[in-house]
Amino acid sequence: MNGKSVSGIIGSWSSALLALCALFSVSIHAADELSWRKLDPENTVFMELRDGLVVIELNPIFAPDTVTQFKRLAQERFYDGLAFYRVIDGFVAQGGDGSDLGALSNVPLIDAEFEIEWKEELPFMAVQAPDMFAPETGFVDGFTVARNPSANKAWLTHCPGVVAMARNDDRDSSRTDFYIVIGQAPRYLDRNLNIFGRVVFGMDVVQRINRGPTLNNGIIEDETKRTRISKLRLLSDIPEDGRLSAYAVDTNSDAFADLLKDRRKRKQKFFHNKPPKVLDVCQVPVNGRITK
Amino acid sequence: MNGKSVSGIIGSWSSALLALCALFSVSIHAADELSWRKLDPENTVFMELRDGLVVIELNPIFAPDTVTQFKRLAQERFYDGLAFYRVIDGFVAQGGDGSDLGALSNVPLIDAEFEIEWKEELPFMAVQAPDMFAPETGFVDGFTVARNPSANKAWLTHCPGVVAMARNDDRDSSRTDFYIVIGQAPRYLDRNLNIFGRVVFGMDVVQRINRGPTLNNGIIEDETKRTRISKLRLLSDIPEDGRLSAYAVDTNSDAFADLLKDRRKRKQKFFHNKPPKVLDVCQVPVNGRITK
Repeated sequence: MNGKSVSGIIGSWSSALLALCALFSVSIHAADELSWRKLDPENTVFMELRDGLVVIELNPIFAPDTVTQFKRLAQERFYDGLAFYRVIDGFVAQGGDGSDLGALSNVPLIDAEFEIEWKEELPFMAVQAPDMFAPETGFVDGFTVARNPSANKAWLTHCPGVVAMARNDDRDSSRTDFYIVIGQAPRYLDRNLNIFGRVVFGMDVVQRINRGPTLNNGIIEDETKRTRISKLRLLSDIPEDGRLSAYAVDTNSDAFADLLKDRRKRKQKFFHNKPPKVLDVCQVPVNGRITK
Repeated sequence: MNGKSVSGIIGSWSSALLALCALFSVSIHAADELSWRKLDPENTVFMELRDGLVVIELNPIFAPDTVTQFKRLAQERFYDGLAFYRVIDGFVAQGGDGSDLGALSNVPLIDAEFEIEWKEELPFMAVQAPDMFAPETGFVDGFTVARNPSANKAWLTHCPGVVAMARNDDRDSSRTDFYIVIGQAPRYLDRNLNIFGRVVFGMDVVQRINRGPTLNNGIIEDETKRTRISKLRLLSDIPEDGRLSAYAVDTNSDAFADLLKDRRKRKQKFFHNKPPKVLDVCQVPVNGRITK
């Protein structure tokens, strides 16, 4: 087991218990070995579902118009009482108004925000070049990103926990309804949808959202079976003394660079067949935590 | 929307509802357009958890000794009343005896079954060559497989829903405790663990297994908070008249080959930026269903 594993820290445990830590010690780092970044309350949303709290970090750099609209909708309490009406296990949970993605509302459409011009001032923590879907992948402030250096473009990638606006065939048809990726990264959707956030806390709660029938497109016909959003609020709209604080692992830190290096090398005795020295950007854990 | 989407079939629905099918029509096929294969009750297990039923198909071709032991343990009702004691969201749910992976039991260890010699008679439905972790990937009878043709080896890959035996550092130290992959495919574990099955039905139930604290290695210290296995049985041990029938999509079928082709091309109007013509073998849905 490597020195950075949790197993190493809880040395007072019985050796029996230590032994069964093996599978996990190869991928888990302890909280105090990571660098944490406090999330900006202006770009953090919390959502209350039946089974608990979900914290979502918004990304105004990659999707400014989408974030502006989502924040306004949160402030207008648009989502309160709405539900996840189409949920396909292993794919996405889609929630919102449901009336043709909000067409019956007075909410304006949002233009496509599929990719941005790369800006040199953005912090890029490289992960893999190339990966199967892009010339290179990495992190920008906790978000998984792909880049195409020859076109100077960058985009957020469809990893588990990503939050994006649903649309119909028209590229500029996003409006109110959003989805959360709940399964293996559907990277083929990259550069085709407005990704504007990611779940930093409460993915276990998201995984408890009621599923629809996969073979009927995930639609939950019985409205009483849909998981409701009881409340969706911008953190900065909560009075400071009653506000939770949310933190995410700082992907710009040396500690995170070390973690990536460890994961690429897999030096632990556990590995009898050394894996290839590649990393799936969607399989690198970027943990979050909250305090009250 | 393409002709194979569910949206195309439910033509009587309102156009408003059709419009919001768009995101999903690109990836979902209807049940009657797929070919189904009935699972062999001798190699199918069902597991009852608090939130419902999970059906697991075993793979005696890739992991004969592991399957033999798991079946015997099921017949001895070894797992009944045991629990998932280490559960990390986005990674794995590990269940079983918990006493150092069953060391306190009288159950023998299982030798490593990390890969097999490829046999020409096995049906291989090709998906991707190379992918990031292997020279080629594909399906063998519903299971995701990677191959290395130059070494004539093949192995089951760590995709979501895969079931494998936990072990400690010793390659031959599997015994009783198993894990289910519940997040983005940890492909770096390929060829290092005895994968012996996959969930064909009830992954939504698996996703409701109580999580442990990620930053404490997923261990659920409070035993009352662990999700219990109330019953785990081999299907063939249930009298035929009370037995469910389980089906999985037939990955050897022409219909499945067409689905792969569709997913590779992404011809639908939905795609304004055409994705690269590659497929992640862990992101291809292979649905299952049951009848009673």
